[in-house]
Amino acid sequence: MKLDALDTPAALIDISRMERNITRMQARMDALGVKFRPHVKTTKCLEVVRAQLAAGAKGITVSTLKEAEAFFSAGVTDILYAVSIAPSKLARAMALRRKGCDLKLVVDNVPAAWEVAKFGREQRASLEVWIEVDTDGHRSGMTPEQDALLEVGRILHEGGAKVGGVMTHAGSSYELHTPEALSALAEQERAGCVRAAQRLRDAGMPCEAVSVGSTPTALSAGTLDGVTEVRAGVYVFFDLVMHNVGVCSIDDIAMSVLATVIGHQPEKGWVILDAGWMAMSRDRGTSRQRHDFGYGLPCALDGAPLNDWVLSGANQEHGILSPAKPQSANGPQDINVTTRFPIGTKLRILPNHACATGAQFPEYHALSDDGETTVWSRFHGW
Amino acid sequence: MKLDALDTPAALIDISRMERNITRMQARMDALGVKFRPHVKTTKCLEVVRAQLAAGAKGITVSTLKEAEAFFSAGVTDILYAVSIAPSKLARAMALRRKGCDLKLVVDNVPAAWEVAKFGREQRASLEVWIEVDTDGHRSGMTPEQDALLEVGRILHEGGAKVGGVMTHAGSSYELHTPEALSALAEQERAGCVRAAQRLRDAGMPCEAVSVGSTPTALSAGTLDGVTEVRAGVYVFFDLVMHNVGVCSIDDIAMSVLATVIGHQPEKGWVILDAGWMAMSRDRGTSRQRHDFGYGLPCALDGAPLNDWVLSGANQEHGILSPAKPQSANGPQDINVTTRFPIGTKLRILPNHACATGAQFPEYHALSDDGETTVWSRFHGW
Repeated sequence: MKLDALDTPAALIDISRMERNITRMQARMDALGVKFRPHVKTTKCLEVVRAQLAAGAKGITVSTLKEAEAFFSAGVTDILYAVSIAPSKLARAMALRRKGCDLKLVVDNVPAAWEVAKFGREQRASLEVWIEVDTDGHRSGMTPEQDALLEVGRILHEGGAKVGGVMTHAGSSYELHTPEALSALAEQERAGCVRAAQRLRDAGMPCEAVSVGSTPTALSAGTLDGVTEVRAGVYVFFDLVMHNVGVCSIDDIAMSVLATVIGHQPEKGWVILDAGWMAMSRDRGTSRQRHDFGYGLPCALDGAPLNDWVLSGANQEHGILSPAKPQSANGPQDINVTTRFPIGTKLRILPNHACATGAQFPEYHALSDDGETTVWSRFHGW
Repeated sequence: MKLDALDTPAALIDISRMERNITRMQARMDALGVKFRPHVKTTKCLEVVRAQLAAGAKGITVSTLKEAEAFFSAGVTDILYAVSIAPSKLARAMALRRKGCDLKLVVDNVPAAWEVAKFGREQRASLEVWIEVDTDGHRSGMTPEQDALLEVGRILHEGGAKVGGVMTHAGSSYELHTPEALSALAEQERAGCVRAAQRLRDAGMPCEAVSVGSTPTALSAGTLDGVTEVRAGVYVFFDLVMHNVGVCSIDDIAMSVLATVIGHQPEKGWVILDAGWMAMSRDRGTSRQRHDFGYGLPCALDGAPLNDWVLSGANQEHGILSPAKPQSANGPQDINVTTRFPIGTKLRILPNHACATGAQFPEYHALSDDGETTVWSRFHGW
């Protein structure tokens, strides 16, 4: 189906941009001499993951067991479930391993380590566990120098589980916006994770994998000595938050929401679209960054950004497009919005956060350079 | 399945609370002498809508044609699609009417009225259209005194469409929090919509229906003279935003997200849950209200609110629970979080916005008073 025949709202993927983003990241990882394990939470879409694997990715990272089950069914076996395991999820994880999935779990605390070891003994099966390391204080994990790091390692190792590696995610990179700060954080992420691995190895545990990553640090690391693999997710589509962080240009953003003009409030300079927060998501990630893009940056149907406009408001199924800048003598507020954006006009809105916006849709429409679109389904839930 | 056996995160519906909310609203509408047309965008769930209709609701309101199609397939025929129609959606709407669905469209501008009239003539079929009226300036619609109101009415009426009524939504009620301001806005909503209907009738158009509503104004209106029906959606579950508006108590909130403790950062007083923004949604509606509930208010598994705690942060699949109040000598920050909320503890998080949180899940788990749960599926997309 042609782009202009799609019903709206619809989530579009610009295939050329996506392929370029995949190539860029894989080439960088190849140059740094590490494996790349994309985080599929961004897309939950088989066609995208196949493109990542075809470009050279080794295995995938998932944020839910549903992702692990779906991608294992599609033939992917090397899977890291990168959220500290809830004991009640162990049976579901074990079922996947019994079917032949090389599923690796994550633990960052002593009680969960005991539960994993106990479950493995009861089931007479060895689980592979990676230990989560906290390298920037933003969320989960144990710090590299913490006593509990070795305690968790020993409980697992002596309890019959395989201590397969350590992993960290410097998610505070999303709050930065200079190359210097980003490369410093990438080095902090690298050094902390390598140090944790070294301590575990010195204490007699194998700990082969040293896994780091976030899109900003992956694209900012100078060297990755001691690291075996990198994880990143949102790089495949990029978004306005990543643009503000400074790791992509607007022209790299591969995902947009196709919307139709359905009304106007001319005195206010408002254009009403049929894409509200149900389509864009409620993510306002750019509100705390150097450029606030509201609920998204509108583009013409050919993808050209309309930098004088912003999706400034959103109800469930209504978006409000308005002038981006304060009023001036020749600003867009002097334009008659009813003739500038007539009823039925289609626009493409770049999202703040591709992971959140994608999750609002049951499918993507993948757009080729010739204007043809193909449905790529995605799943949601847990 | 019993509540404590559910995998997490899961969206729970407390059936007793939901039934109480439905009864309260229907009794109020009966007392005011108007029909009630619930907005099903909140739930997109057949079991909930059946309960609303069983209690006395007449017809439904939808925010997407997908909702109209799904509920018509399930036997609901009287449907108002309450978003100004995009011309490209007319064929899909007409297909529903041809199958016997009494689908009513909405228009709030001259070009769309021309498109509807033209489409009806081309298809040799009459469409029913309600005209959207702007009574509070928050979004769409024409003001009651606007010349274009009559112009739109005439284009439709003389073009062969049925001008079935007027409708308005005083969505700015979400920004209020006193009974006086709410009842004043309810009266403004009523008076403006009735006035618009009167002008259309005086100009020779039938305009039978006068449809108003939002959950806060529906629960605050003193009289509804001249109004024929009220619409409201979120009242069926309520949420923390509605609590801050002042139209429900915490004990009325029927929806919550079941989550499991998966980690801790004891020095920070953080408890890590397996419910992040993918489960709660990115909606931070209470951030601009009198009580900011972060990403949600935690409750024990039995539903008792833990008012000293708040879901203060959220990554995609990680939520951060932390003390709600600034540090004090005897505050919860002095509690050892690892013993207060051990790994595996299950909690229920009340959401900021039930419409947004529900949309993150493929299904609800409806919870009876005996602790048994039943799956109620819901749909998403357009």
